[in-house]
Amino acid sequence: MAENKKMVEAITSRDEDFAKWYTDIVKKAELVDYSGVKGCMVIRPYGYGIWENIQKDLDRRFKETGVENVYMPMFIPESLLQKEKDHVEGFAPECAWVTVGGSEKLTERLCVRPTSETLFCEHYAKIINTYRDLPKLYNQWCSVVRWEKTTRPFLRTSEFLWQEGHTMHETAEEAIDETLKMLKVYEDFYRETLAIPAVVGRKTEKEKFAGAEATYTIEPMMHNGVALQGGTTHYFGDGFAKSFDITYQGRDNKLHYPHQTSWGVSTRMIGAIIMVHGDDDGLVLPPKVAPIQVALIPIAQHKEGVLDKVYEVADTLKKDFRVKVDASDKAPGWKFSEYEMKGVPVRVELGPKDIEKNQCVIVRRDNREKIFVSLDNLSQEVQKALDAVHNAMYEKALKNMEEKTSVATSFDEFVDIAENKPGFIKAMWCGEKECEEKLKEVTNGVKSRCIPFEEENLADTCVCCGKKAKHMVYWGKQY
Amino acid sequence: MAENKKMVEAITSRDEDFAKWYTDIVKKAELVDYSGVKGCMVIRPYGYGIWENIQKDLDRRFKETGVENVYMPMFIPESLLQKEKDHVEGFAPECAWVTVGGSEKLTERLCVRPTSETLFCEHYAKIINTYRDLPKLYNQWCSVVRWEKTTRPFLRTSEFLWQEGHTMHETAEEAIDETLKMLKVYEDFYRETLAIPAVVGRKTEKEKFAGAEATYTIEPMMHNGVALQGGTTHYFGDGFAKSFDITYQGRDNKLHYPHQTSWGVSTRMIGAIIMVHGDDDGLVLPPKVAPIQVALIPIAQHKEGVLDKVYEVADTLKKDFRVKVDASDKAPGWKFSEYEMKGVPVRVELGPKDIEKNQCVIVRRDNREKIFVSLDNLSQEVQKALDAVHNAMYEKALKNMEEKTSVATSFDEFVDIAENKPGFIKAMWCGEKECEEKLKEVTNGVKSRCIPFEEENLADTCVCCGKKAKHMVYWGKQY
Repeated sequence: MAENKKMVEAITSRDEDFAKWYTDIVKKAELVDYSGVKGCMVIRPYGYGIWENIQKDLDRRFKETGVENVYMPMFIPESLLQKEKDHVEGFAPECAWVTVGGSEKLTERLCVRPTSETLFCEHYAKIINTYRDLPKLYNQWCSVVRWEKTTRPFLRTSEFLWQEGHTMHETAEEAIDETLKMLKVYEDFYRETLAIPAVVGRKTEKEKFAGAEATYTIEPMMHNGVALQGGTTHYFGDGFAKSFDITYQGRDNKLHYPHQTSWGVSTRMIGAIIMVHGDDDGLVLPPKVAPIQVALIPIAQHKEGVLDKVYEVADTLKKDFRVKVDASDKAPGWKFSEYEMKGVPVRVELGPKDIEKNQCVIVRRDNREKIFVSLDNLSQEVQKALDAVHNAMYEKALKNMEEKTSVATSFDEFVDIAENKPGFIKAMWCGEKECEEKLKEVTNGVKSRCIPFEEENLADTCVCCGKKAKHMVYWGKQY
Repeated sequence: MAENKKMVEAITSRDEDFAKWYTDIVKKAELVDYSGVKGCMVIRPYGYGIWENIQKDLDRRFKETGVENVYMPMFIPESLLQKEKDHVEGFAPECAWVTVGGSEKLTERLCVRPTSETLFCEHYAKIINTYRDLPKLYNQWCSVVRWEKTTRPFLRTSEFLWQEGHTMHETAEEAIDETLKMLKVYEDFYRETLAIPAVVGRKTEKEKFAGAEATYTIEPMMHNGVALQGGTTHYFGDGFAKSFDITYQGRDNKLHYPHQTSWGVSTRMIGAIIMVHGDDDGLVLPPKVAPIQVALIPIAQHKEGVLDKVYEVADTLKKDFRVKVDASDKAPGWKFSEYEMKGVPVRVELGPKDIEKNQCVIVRRDNREKIFVSLDNLSQEVQKALDAVHNAMYEKALKNMEEKTSVATSFDEFVDIAENKPGFIKAMWCGEKECEEKLKEVTNGVKSRCIPFEEENLADTCVCCGKKAKHMVYWGKQY
């Protein structure tokens, strides 16, 4: 077991150094490799496998609401990006610019898309004519580029993979409904597929998206109490439509501007999976997105009949699950550690004694619980174990979030919690940007996460300035 | 029927002006929209739906051979691109260069990937250590950029979507096997999924990929006799491995260079689908990739019970097929034209009289054949019709390719055929580049397509220079 121990020791302890623990996991579980391209990462098969499962699940959810996929160019001419004032101010500082094509200097610089509102608007201006053309519910899966100085795999990279939905509607009401509907899709996806609980709500004016009238967000909490902006949906009103001259003939035969939304989640979600669920032995993957759901490990595989039985069992399990048989010549203990490190939700062990008794051992990754089950209904038992793992992961994460959520009713209390207890702080706020800025400054980075849809009345006054409170806000540091 | 006729007349006749016919179809069937970004296209939902079905099918085929998906950065530093001499010479002239990131001028230019051999090699150098790490069978789905002066949707655009497989093997033999195996995957996919026949074989030295030792190709013929390079697989030997210093410890404990392949197909395949199968009424889509497989059109839909029955039938069909019900207030004749234009393989008509008789009408897109079938086993009948459409499309395309394939045994005959009969020319060749160049020049663009795996002995001498023939070659003009 020496080798096996060595492997585990190679991960920094989560409580000792969360940042190093994170980096160790992404490297050792072979999720990413650093590349020679500054700020960009190579997503390796095991990491990309998670992304493929995320995509499949989310894409189905989008399509069930009537969304269609498209593909827009990856370049945005500078003049197009400049059409909406707030938008270009928000994004121009982080654009990568193509200035040479072939061997010729371009007459106009092209930005590698940081997001595609402008391209969608240009297209919508051409294809939307009457109310019969609405709504338009488009989405694209692609990569985007935002030039970053300091980067961390999945959390902040110069290029990342994401989906961006862009929709157009007849009325403001319909567009707002869409914005909330897609936020609900994200929330359901986080809970049902990633086993991650989160706070949802509206961003303050200060924190909203460049060019948006309102931004909604889903904010899961990482194990260490730091928040991650896990996905956002934006309501644009008709601001872009006016800038891009998108009009439609309404039911009243008059010309109107349509109302617009956009919404997106990215590979950053893989960072959330790592930081919400991982432990000192490595990754813990939610069963629904795990590239390998079951690691099937033969015990005493040199003994007659063991491998035959293992492959027979694998064939059965493969009908329902993503299964990996490891019949390599490494010791079983080494394999146990390896698949624990990789966060495989369920391990099945099968040796000569098990075969005699027509049974096998199922071991859960999340709590190491071991159960002996009959081979006769193994698929059912594996499904039960995977469901149990999912539910326990969710409950554990919820408990962590609840334990690390505090209430502050005074400025001093707020500062004290911010210094001594990482996590969310619920506190009342007057609605002024100045108070957000002050709180951020004195706490070294605690920002408003969101105004939840159901606000509690914790006090009558703003935790910062003492004036009349307008909203209850979730506050916290973020990645 | 006036409106309906107008719609059909809007497409240029295929025999009159093939290029305009093609452009009409991509626009009117709403496959793409031109964008304000030079040389780039917007792939609209109906076009992207075809690509999604292509991806799903091909991805399954790749994974069945053990291939894993990854994602590499979209940028290649200039110094990395320059590591393999032939490769950089081939691609540098068509690169788009990022020179500014954020507001700073970059110290090194970044090329937007035209293909990713160099990035894969950089990564493989880090993760390949021993023969136990081989083979590595990686693929990525992404977009690439090759700066083009003149562009046509799907056929030649500055940005396009594709997959690029990059594999590393212990021996040359294994790598060559992989190259041929993936060519076979493409050939099967074209035949079984796209209903497109093709010639396959090896490219001549002159036509092979920049940096490759051998390039294999699949070359379907368009309806007008012009070839399309439909997909290529490359064997690189250990050339890149040497340039990038990728070594592995072999079974003999010595260091060796691994042997490499790459292979790719792109959205250009959608161009092939259009040009192989389309007709004067519009697209004809292969059933397996058609976004809508069945258009269900109610007749006299205002009559009681018709729409109820139509939706009931649709619910049944949707279990097995991609179905679109069109209950809009357009006339049935207009709808017929619209779904013909969009190439929907099978139309189902259902009216009051049909309902009385518990039947409906199935109309095939490819030959307009109409059959009356019972509603009791409609799914079976629709499946039979879709299979029949697929097979008939393949046979028709094969017949076209055979009819437009000629044999030339003399220089004059070659030139005469090249001038008067568009299509493939089979002719013997001495193996010299000079003869390829001469034939191309005198025929205004007829190039070698490939040396097929099974060569016929048509003559003993080269059709161009009269010296001893080495190979039989397929020749033809290309898109």
